[in-house]
Amino acid sequence: MDTPFSGIKNDVQGRLRCYKQDWVQALALGVRILAPTAYIFFASALPVIAFGEQLNKDTDDMLSAVETLTSTAICGIIHALFGGQPLLILGVAEPTVIMYNYLYTFAKQTSDLGKHLFLAWAGWVCVWTSVMLCVLAIFNACTLITRFTRLAGELFGMLISVLFMQEAIKGVLSEFHIPKGENETKEEYQFHWLYTNGLFALILSVGTLITSIKSRGARSWPYGVGWLRGLIADYGVPLMVMVWTALSYAKPREVPREVPRRLYCPLPWEAGSLSHWTVIKVMVKVPMIHIFTAIIPALMIAALYFFDHSVAAQMAQPKEFNLKNPSAYHYDLLLLGFMTLICGMVGVPPSNGVLPQSPMHTRSLAILERQLMRKKMVKCAKEGMKLEASRSEIYGKMHAAFVDMDPHKTIHVDKELEDLKEVVMKREDGDAKVKFDPDIHIEDHIPVRVNEQRVTNLLQSFLVGSAVFAMPAIKMIPTSVLWGYFAYMSIDSLPGNQFWERLLLLFIPSGRRFKLYEGPHASYVESVPFKYIMMFTLFQLVYLLVCYGITWIPIGGILFPLPFFFLIPIREHFLPKMFPRQHLQELDASAYEEVTGHSGYMSLSRRVFEHHAEGSEVDDFFDVTSPEILDEMFTHRGELKLRSSFKDRQLHVEPQNDDSLA
Amino acid sequence: MDTPFSGIKNDVQGRLRCYKQDWVQALALGVRILAPTAYIFFASALPVIAFGEQLNKDTDDMLSAVETLTSTAICGIIHALFGGQPLLILGVAEPTVIMYNYLYTFAKQTSDLGKHLFLAWAGWVCVWTSVMLCVLAIFNACTLITRFTRLAGELFGMLISVLFMQEAIKGVLSEFHIPKGENETKEEYQFHWLYTNGLFALILSVGTLITSIKSRGARSWPYGVGWLRGLIADYGVPLMVMVWTALSYAKPREVPREVPRRLYCPLPWEAGSLSHWTVIKVMVKVPMIHIFTAIIPALMIAALYFFDHSVAAQMAQPKEFNLKNPSAYHYDLLLLGFMTLICGMVGVPPSNGVLPQSPMHTRSLAILERQLMRKKMVKCAKEGMKLEASRSEIYGKMHAAFVDMDPHKTIHVDKELEDLKEVVMKREDGDAKVKFDPDIHIEDHIPVRVNEQRVTNLLQSFLVGSAVFAMPAIKMIPTSVLWGYFAYMSIDSLPGNQFWERLLLLFIPSGRRFKLYEGPHASYVESVPFKYIMMFTLFQLVYLLVCYGITWIPIGGILFPLPFFFLIPIREHFLPKMFPRQHLQELDASAYEEVTGHSGYMSLSRRVFEHHAEGSEVDDFFDVTSPEILDEMFTHRGELKLRSSFKDRQLHVEPQNDDSLA
Repeated sequence: MDTPFSGIKNDVQGRLRCYKQDWVQALALGVRILAPTAYIFFASALPVIAFGEQLNKDTDDMLSAVETLTSTAICGIIHALFGGQPLLILGVAEPTVIMYNYLYTFAKQTSDLGKHLFLAWAGWVCVWTSVMLCVLAIFNACTLITRFTRLAGELFGMLISVLFMQEAIKGVLSEFHIPKGENETKEEYQFHWLYTNGLFALILSVGTLITSIKSRGARSWPYGVGWLRGLIADYGVPLMVMVWTALSYAKPREVPREVPRRLYCPLPWEAGSLSHWTVIKVMVKVPMIHIFTAIIPALMIAALYFFDHSVAAQMAQPKEFNLKNPSAYHYDLLLLGFMTLICGMVGVPPSNGVLPQSPMHTRSLAILERQLMRKKMVKCAKEGMKLEASRSEIYGKMHAAFVDMDPHKTIHVDKELEDLKEVVMKREDGDAKVKFDPDIHIEDHIPVRVNEQRVTNLLQSFLVGSAVFAMPAIKMIPTSVLWGYFAYMSIDSLPGNQFWERLLLLFIPSGRRFKLYEGPHASYVESVPFKYIMMFTLFQLVYLLVCYGITWIPIGGILFPLPFFFLIPIREHFLPKMFPRQHLQELDASAYEEVTGHSGYMSLSRRVFEHHAEGSEVDDFFDVTSPEILDEMFTHRGELKLRSSFKDRQLHVEPQNDDSLA
Repeated sequence: MDTPFSGIKNDVQGRLRCYKQDWVQALALGVRILAPTAYIFFASALPVIAFGEQLNKDTDDMLSAVETLTSTAICGIIHALFGGQPLLILGVAEPTVIMYNYLYTFAKQTSDLGKHLFLAWAGWVCVWTSVMLCVLAIFNACTLITRFTRLAGELFGMLISVLFMQEAIKGVLSEFHIPKGENETKEEYQFHWLYTNGLFALILSVGTLITSIKSRGARSWPYGVGWLRGLIADYGVPLMVMVWTALSYAKPREVPREVPRRLYCPLPWEAGSLSHWTVIKVMVKVPMIHIFTAIIPALMIAALYFFDHSVAAQMAQPKEFNLKNPSAYHYDLLLLGFMTLICGMVGVPPSNGVLPQSPMHTRSLAILERQLMRKKMVKCAKEGMKLEASRSEIYGKMHAAFVDMDPHKTIHVDKELEDLKEVVMKREDGDAKVKFDPDIHIEDHIPVRVNEQRVTNLLQSFLVGSAVFAMPAIKMIPTSVLWGYFAYMSIDSLPGNQFWERLLLLFIPSGRRFKLYEGPHASYVESVPFKYIMMFTLFQLVYLLVCYGITWIPIGGILFPLPFFFLIPIREHFLPKMFPRQHLQELDASAYEEVTGHSGYMSLSRRVFEHHAEGSEVDDFFDVTSPEILDEMFTHRGELKLRSSFKDRQLHVEPQNDDSLA
């Protein structure tokens, strides 16, 4: 490990160099910038609200969506202004909520803390956490992150998704019962209305779940025009929440107003929510001993954040997107420390880098940039063609245009544009079939660029902040819709999680595996003997059950992150004894390697490309947008899949991957 | 048209020749016969019960599941004993129910008939109907059936499925209201329980619908072992009805017993249901004038039955199954006439040939026969191999075995066994890779045979009859589960209906059609210009709306079958003016022609075959059962799809079909 602060120093220097650029870049986008902003806003606001409701149930109304939204907004703004990697999206995440649940249970049970000192004590936890995070940052700990392999990452992902599902089920069941500490004589708590409320909740939650899952895949539907499918795919989930909220009002007036139950949150300007802004004053009241008990949860939270934040940052800047600005892991961790401190002071749960929003953010900006470039390039080409300029002249123009769009004055421009050049020039020979049509042929050959800037992040944070004042509207959402949303988050996070996919594999009899081989499937399925796949999966399953069991321990449950750190030594010393090296590598590969199926399945991108290469005249034969292609190339967690075609591959052969984006 | 009675005469002679055989054949099956029996029993009992409940709602409890089951049983037994084509399954069908609904409304409104003379008058309708059916049979009208093209058939199918959906929706809505003529002061009719009942119904019906649809496709799941998937696919729907019925009892005891509502039907041995056995005595009381008004509905019903019965019979004996016994359209129509008469006399709604149960019956028997043959053949081959007999000797043994299993002593045996012979002999050359393994290589080369006999039909009819005495159990089914089942029947009948598929096509923008081309798709999509597809479909749609509109006319609605007969002249004189002959043929083709998709999609059968042809050693690589292959080759209506591979075909080229079963 190198000298303290060195990491931070590099990061700061690197980012300062392009700080001005981070703002200027945004201008090029103009109003277009609103698209990714709205996209990310909805993607991050909804879970934050849901977590708010979960916190609210867990902490007897002490915290609510107001606090989670506030924290997300504050941290988001700070990060957008002073953060290292502006592509990283921050928000209150599930682990934080779980931790705060444990903190509350502990505080409530502890005589010399009690409900009224909960936030103050949590403040101290944040203080310690922030200290630890700073230390980690200073000593360049982020270099350790690589030692968490897919094994750990996917186990953690599965645990979260199990907890989501548990939350959903607990939530729906709670709708059949009177919330603790409520006046049982109220009309809506009479048995028949209670039961009605339960049935209602069942319908609303299942409805939200199913429609959300369906709408998510809208972009690949055959039906409907492109923009509509895109809209549904991008905003389907919030849309469904609104739809089912609206439907929840379609009930005869004989049904009491409080059926179905709706979100509880005090309006931000009411005393209830104002009190805790001044929590810092109360922190001094916390007994000395508990200032130190705060260290244990702080350790856990710090560990979690250290892990989560770095992974999110990592996935926000995959190399395939040729980002031009440097990463800033160490500095961002330091900043996270400060933000955690602030959150603790004002009594709101802290935020950290979130998945899948961060990679979503990067992708949406890449798509935007691509559209911009395409537009400009096509314009150049067409002008050139009008003037009947030679192909080389046209290419020259395009080259110039590209260079002047690229703020980073990359040196390898020519190499990057090779592909495009080839296309433009090749079309020289007057063969009608391969006539050069800018509208069609350019798009697929533009190098991938991301519009790296801070404005989208800043704007979406402001929007989240303003959502706090939309509380009167948010209060209209039935709780059951949120339970359905939890179930959605749980299920939606599964595809692309190889642990999950391997679990399913166990239920496929050998004679039916050909079904799997037909479609695209992870490469290990073919390269690793089933025996090892099974062993590895069962090991993960047992480990998962252990971790899940820990979360059920009343207060000790707070230690649930520990097992994930044990995974490092286990992976490095124990597993290699159990599995042949090469198989272990395949099963625990750093990249999600996929093989296209036997049934001649072709990835969208390749299909479209080959089609255009043929220069077919049916221009609109493939109406496929880049977002749809990207959908196919990324897991729901935002991880890129490395595609290797099945051509000339046999069972049990190492895959040779070609990168589908390059 | 040839001389009267000639058709009937031929049929009778033809069937008499194999009548004894029809019973003997069954012996070969032994206990195995119970499989198809149970399969068909459940497939036909469930809808009959559902229709019973529909009738019950429409006729203010005058008729119920008791009567529909009785009718189905009586007619089934008669047909099994004396019927021409024993593969044909009879049952009370939706058109009959709709007709009886109109009859009831008319009777109730007509002062000199009224509720008490409804069944008597319906009796007269049956009398007339039976006369007409006999006349049709005598004059060999069945030859006309060919003039109803796919156009008419699919329009009728769509109308029925629309009516099913309407029934489902009306049913669920009715759960929110007090049934007419009920005592409103009852506890379960207090608003809050009424509302609870409604929500409950919503959950039960949607649950039944979704789970039934899912379970239907079980056979092609990758998960689970074969027998389990088969079980779910064959009995999933009745199973789901039971499951949701069981779930409907999972409710706190505070909820009144009558929530959710359950099937209403008087026990068969109660006065309510006994009364109408003697309806014949009341028939004389019907005023003369109304004996003649009965002619109009009789005309409609006769027309419907003539159409339905013949089509069902047709689809029960497709040529691809090489049935050995002759058809008996004319004679069966005559018999239907007599059965209608009997049903009228005892005051139950008559039955007629039903879809998709009839083709299901044939298929299940084909599968059974195949298993038998395979077993026997493999045995022969193995014995031969043990004795190290030459391949030709082995083949000789198999040939003999086959001949002696085939009661019809077909002449072309050698031709039929060619394929098998080739396989057996080819394996001669000692090449290890193509080693001959009876267990694998024989199955795909056995000629298709159906075990044609009367026992399955007879047994399943008896079962349906005995179901009448299971009423106490049937009464436990919540009505809402049946509404869900109606919705299922509606949706399940759509795939394979080209009218429906073309309707969907209208929602696919040209740029997205490649999605369609990838999978297997009807051939007209490629051979007919979209313009004509659209015109044809819109014409059908308008026509459908007209027919649907007619059903809404209070009593005149009884004429709703008329438009379908107008379709004959329209198809023969009007449409040819609108569409180029060849396109019209494609759109209104007698066979369902399908093209395998571009994405190299291979039909299961071909995949398995090619795999075995390679003689690969991974014996269990393809765990695909013949039922699964058949599933892929038939539409849900029981129609065979003609597959033509996409190889060397371009867009807008007539398809050259190869028959996938041959």
